[in-house]
Amino acid sequence: MNAHDTTLEIIPLGGLGEFGMNCMVLRYGADIIVIDAGLMFSEVGHFGVDSMTPDFTFLERHREQVRAVLLTHSHEDHIGSLPFLLKKVNVPVYGTPYTLSIVEPRLEEHHLLATTQLHPVRAGETVEVGAFSVEYIRVSHSTVDCCALAITTPIGTVVHSGDFKFDATPVCGDAIDVERLRAVGRRGVLALLSDSTNIERPGQMPSERVVIPALEEIFDRATGRIFVSCFASSIHRIQIVFDLARQFGRQVVAVGRAMERNIEIAERTGFLDTADLLVSAKDFKHYEPGETVVLASGCQGEPMGAMWRIADRSHRQAWMEAGDTVVLSARQIPGNEKAISRLINRCYRNEVQVIDATQARIHVSGHGAQEDLRLMLEAVRPKYFIPIHGEYRQLYRHKLFACQTLGYSPDRVLLVESGDVVVLDGETARLGDKITINRVYIDDTCSLELDETLLRDRKRLAYEGVVIAGVAVEESSGMLLGPPEITTRGYLGVDGDEEEIAELRDVVLAAVEALPPAERINGGKEHFQEHLRLALKRHIMRVTGQKPTIVPLVVVV
Amino acid sequence: MNAHDTTLEIIPLGGLGEFGMNCMVLRYGADIIVIDAGLMFSEVGHFGVDSMTPDFTFLERHREQVRAVLLTHSHEDHIGSLPFLLKKVNVPVYGTPYTLSIVEPRLEEHHLLATTQLHPVRAGETVEVGAFSVEYIRVSHSTVDCCALAITTPIGTVVHSGDFKFDATPVCGDAIDVERLRAVGRRGVLALLSDSTNIERPGQMPSERVVIPALEEIFDRATGRIFVSCFASSIHRIQIVFDLARQFGRQVVAVGRAMERNIEIAERTGFLDTADLLVSAKDFKHYEPGETVVLASGCQGEPMGAMWRIADRSHRQAWMEAGDTVVLSARQIPGNEKAISRLINRCYRNEVQVIDATQARIHVSGHGAQEDLRLMLEAVRPKYFIPIHGEYRQLYRHKLFACQTLGYSPDRVLLVESGDVVVLDGETARLGDKITINRVYIDDTCSLELDETLLRDRKRLAYEGVVIAGVAVEESSGMLLGPPEITTRGYLGVDGDEEEIAELRDVVLAAVEALPPAERINGGKEHFQEHLRLALKRHIMRVTGQKPTIVPLVVVV
Repeated sequence: MNAHDTTLEIIPLGGLGEFGMNCMVLRYGADIIVIDAGLMFSEVGHFGVDSMTPDFTFLERHREQVRAVLLTHSHEDHIGSLPFLLKKVNVPVYGTPYTLSIVEPRLEEHHLLATTQLHPVRAGETVEVGAFSVEYIRVSHSTVDCCALAITTPIGTVVHSGDFKFDATPVCGDAIDVERLRAVGRRGVLALLSDSTNIERPGQMPSERVVIPALEEIFDRATGRIFVSCFASSIHRIQIVFDLARQFGRQVVAVGRAMERNIEIAERTGFLDTADLLVSAKDFKHYEPGETVVLASGCQGEPMGAMWRIADRSHRQAWMEAGDTVVLSARQIPGNEKAISRLINRCYRNEVQVIDATQARIHVSGHGAQEDLRLMLEAVRPKYFIPIHGEYRQLYRHKLFACQTLGYSPDRVLLVESGDVVVLDGETARLGDKITINRVYIDDTCSLELDETLLRDRKRLAYEGVVIAGVAVEESSGMLLGPPEITTRGYLGVDGDEEEIAELRDVVLAAVEALPPAERINGGKEHFQEHLRLALKRHIMRVTGQKPTIVPLVVVV
Repeated sequence: MNAHDTTLEIIPLGGLGEFGMNCMVLRYGADIIVIDAGLMFSEVGHFGVDSMTPDFTFLERHREQVRAVLLTHSHEDHIGSLPFLLKKVNVPVYGTPYTLSIVEPRLEEHHLLATTQLHPVRAGETVEVGAFSVEYIRVSHSTVDCCALAITTPIGTVVHSGDFKFDATPVCGDAIDVERLRAVGRRGVLALLSDSTNIERPGQMPSERVVIPALEEIFDRATGRIFVSCFASSIHRIQIVFDLARQFGRQVVAVGRAMERNIEIAERTGFLDTADLLVSAKDFKHYEPGETVVLASGCQGEPMGAMWRIADRSHRQAWMEAGDTVVLSARQIPGNEKAISRLINRCYRNEVQVIDATQARIHVSGHGAQEDLRLMLEAVRPKYFIPIHGEYRQLYRHKLFACQTLGYSPDRVLLVESGDVVVLDGETARLGDKITINRVYIDDTCSLELDETLLRDRKRLAYEGVVIAGVAVEESSGMLLGPPEITTRGYLGVDGDEEEIAELRDVVLAAVEALPPAERINGGKEHFQEHLRLALKRHIMRVTGQKPTIVPLVVVV
């Protein structure tokens, strides 16, 4: 019996110290479970990187111990890297019915649906996975069928909050099950892992219903078309739009693949009632402006998104005209401000009215603010508290909040980041050896991982371009054959192309001559090429101050 | 006498339809004046671009007509491209004393100070430039010594607002000269060009003094060091910090080159009173935590900024410790959110308190909100109104505001963008032929312009890397000599390097063989290289779906 047998390890693989790609590992004895497998949208899109996933190396190394992946809800930052994880470690997946319905087509795209075991779990149900007994507890959030998990092990219970707010009056589905959280708390909770996203916002986050009055006023005033763009996963918001459509006698046109798909799934799983108001995008043209409301995806101004294409007049089925109203019913994800501004500029060129969340109460966050976070801590009353989901600033402030406002002792609140290992034995908590976590970059066009070296090379190429020098040498003598060939891409010379290229040719010639003919061949091609590279690098740096990528190419004849 | 002789042309070269690089040209007869020459910080930093300037081609083409550049104030987006303009067209520069003092060291860096005529103009003074009589009128803004310009021509007066708000109680210098604006308005104004930056914000922008109570409370509570990071140009804010330092018995340490320089200039020109409280950064170490307040530049989290280096513990002279307070007294410029968040994360790792503008009223904008914009329009009462400084959304909403709220007839409000030409004859306004405006990208390391082709090449290299293929052919026979040489940088193959490179070598061999030996030489090297490039492109696209840059290099022996 080794140390693992009586300890519980909590190992965040992603989402702590960074926003996105949430993934939490629990190990008790020889049993590992994984909570969520999320994705982070890339900040390095210029370099062919679309997203990042957690580093699953730890799970690959202990593949025989991994019992299951348990999903808390269906947002990208909780399910997006699931296909990449399953390709490495094929284990059963548990999640609520709506969550799994969102996951299914995703797995199909990756040809994983046939080989993956999907186990639906309803809120309130408990599943046994290895040494873990996991109860799904309903929480409120901006999408539907979301749960916290109460995970019972032989040494105690860990509660993972998922993403949540205390919404007593959600539009779709049941409210957060505060009673059940309190009951779990009364039974005794060893550790709570709780979402920190909105710890910097004071007060309580309002219910999803808070946006109804402002949207109602917009519907009341609008005479032309109404375009509502929101996240396709915001099912409460979408239900509100359907309700208002019925109230104001409009049909609902869903535009955008994600929007159409999520509406279909939400209706099929019983969370959305479209009340026969949904009409196909191809019928958009048959309606008068005042007869429809369009639900469009692409609220972040994505260049291929439905909302942009409608505004840009490049959508095949839907368009906007002077007098229409555009409602951007979402937050601006940091980094998307410029794309959203471009979308608004484009809308105004059509002389429509644009209403965003700075002008009217048409958006509310699904993540609890300080009072929600307090309610979670007070319901669960854990012995140890680990803030999760946030950059260091959110985790730090969540810890401060627990200590200063709720009186937690600082040694009971563990401020840990992805790769840290928390070891619990039922009585004490300590940090184990940190595990190595690398960045994993994904190119969506081929679903392949890109390594750091490749990305570093691309960044260098982008920054100052590339200078390529080709020479041909005779194998028998090491003599140079013909003049060196020089070409550049994206490289800024100082004296105009022709002159500088001639100069670079001279540099290469001099460098070739500086090396005895025999050494050019016998020293190996790498040695010769490196010699040429250094000569060019020194010259270019001295003359221009630039540091382009330099590629020497020796053809041996 | 041609048409120009009796018409006034208003030609924005930058800043209309985009934020930044403000530059407005006025031409009457054979006289051109330029109002401001600003810079736009780059969104394409990855590609070696630091900033963008307006396209000054129009001014180069009419260089003999250009009489002067008139600066409204000293912000980068109004003066930053002045060196680049002066290198193309060396004309006298007019501006207020503080503005010119900020401009001087800039010109020196570009070796332009000796050859540039700088003419200081105080608020209230009028200068004659060609056919134009230009009165400098004091306005309030976040920096000091800012002016609007009333430009009188034979056919009427044009008012250019500069950047402004109606601040009756600025901290430094005089308040906006509303009386003078009204007097100019009473005399009759042909056109007003007015700042649109904050048109989306209702109400009136508060005075610079509005931040005093919250800052006073921070000073009152702080026991450790206080770090205030703000824009180095925010002289009112800096004066407030000095005033609070005196009130609370602290010395002021200025850290960061921009901060030190601007404080020196503002004191020298009479806008700032440091009251002997300023101590050198090298003396930071001699003070107890409770004895100093540090004014640090780098409020946007710039990696080389003073604030980051202090937080990161990499600054040579200043540092922070648990118990200190960091005050980020600035707005987040869109695009900088991530860098600012990184700075806040880093600060919290030192266990300091961080206060930003979301938590306390420690920042106020220098740009007027809707009521300020209304006051400007009502004071000047122009015949024509041209919204300036903003993306299309701000210009559009400023037009709507003038029409819907102030009753302007839509044909009196001209919604124009950079490159448009407004032609006024004293009675009517019309749009002339648009002039061509290109993007001009600047690499700061060498102060050189980068062209669009170079940038496009860099973007392609960044996105999928580069594949390089070298072949040597005999000039006399066209025969291939030796095997083709293949190398890649930043390119993601599908089957591992060795195998794919062998495959690419085969593709090149086949492509060479497909071309008759004579054609390889006689068709010209470009023809041969393009033939190889297409063969590689087709193969790579088919096998991997990737589109790297492909560079074939033929060495003729």
